[in-house]
Amino acid sequence: MKTLWITCLLFSIPIVGGCQMLTRSEQQGSESEYFKVYPIGKIEKKDGRTFIVLDKEYEAGLKGLQKHSYVHVVYWFDRNDTPEKRAILQVHPRGDKNNPLTGVFATHSPFRPNLIAISKCDIISIKENVIEIKGIDAFDGSPVLDLKGDFFRFYKPDTK
Amino acid sequence: MKTLWITCLLFSIPIVGGCQMLTRSEQQGSESEYFKVYPIGKIEKKDGRTFIVLDKEYEAGLKGLQKHSYVHVVYWFDRNDTPEKRAILQVHPRGDKNNPLTGVFATHSPFRPNLIAISKCDIISIKENVIEIKGIDAFDGSPVLDLKGDFFRFYKPDTK
Repeated sequence: MKTLWITCLLFSIPIVGGCQMLTRSEQQGSESEYFKVYPIGKIEKKDGRTFIVLDKEYEAGLKGLQKHSYVHVVYWFDRNDTPEKRAILQVHPRGDKNNPLTGVFATHSPFRPNLIAISKCDIISIKENVIEIKGIDAFDGSPVLDLKGDFFRFYKPDTK
Repeated sequence: MKTLWITCLLFSIPIVGGCQMLTRSEQQGSESEYFKVYPIGKIEKKDGRTFIVLDKEYEAGLKGLQKHSYVHVVYWFDRNDTPEKRAILQVHPRGDKNNPLTGVFATHSPFRPNLIAISKCDIISIKENVIEIKGIDAFDGSPVLDLKGDFFRFYKPDTK
């Protein structure tokens, strides 16, 4: 009888511990709402050339991009994904103290609350799931989140 | 003895159930990596005018934006945040069947794997945490994720 109680107790500790973690995690989610962004591919730099290597499952999303001369590449400043770096709201542009302290929303600083980077890049070629682009101010391996072609060359913008 | 076993069994069912959820959730996280983006404010439309109302805590990030004539507004297509809509990879642009089926990465479609929207908007005024912009193809209440001013007017781009 005593042995059974001890067994039950020992068995339940890690289970209850795990459940408390779940609750804490859920509470955080409700305290500050967030959305999920998934990498769709990555930047690859090789022999002075730059490629966007899309995950194969997203290749169908490139249909028609061959007609475009450039693409806006949306990627993630993954090296700065810490609460401390995401809390930075003002920087000296280009990391140069001679440049006046400026709000991150007036800059393209890699320090910002959401680590979204956008670069407009000339398209050199598209082969299956690989796009060669002219150049990008990103590290090799940076996760790519989205691509947006020169849409307004084909369709006029709506502004309401 | 029998009663004790039954009590233990009944007591443990919800605990183990909860933990299975935690495990499943953790497995999903490791199967498909994601990054978190947090709303920093929202779009407000009033009497034909359009405002970006930044959460007060981010106001310091606007320092210097007053000198800029436009801003790239990054927002979230929150109405399409379902796995089904995020799985759409090809669309008829503008929802018009006469437009050929096109990959979402060649369009600005609100259906795409990551629901990131980007609009270049003229700045009318900035007062504290509120920016009046000329217009945007977004719904009232859309969550804003980031702002990027006309940075390259002040600093030349690096391309490596």
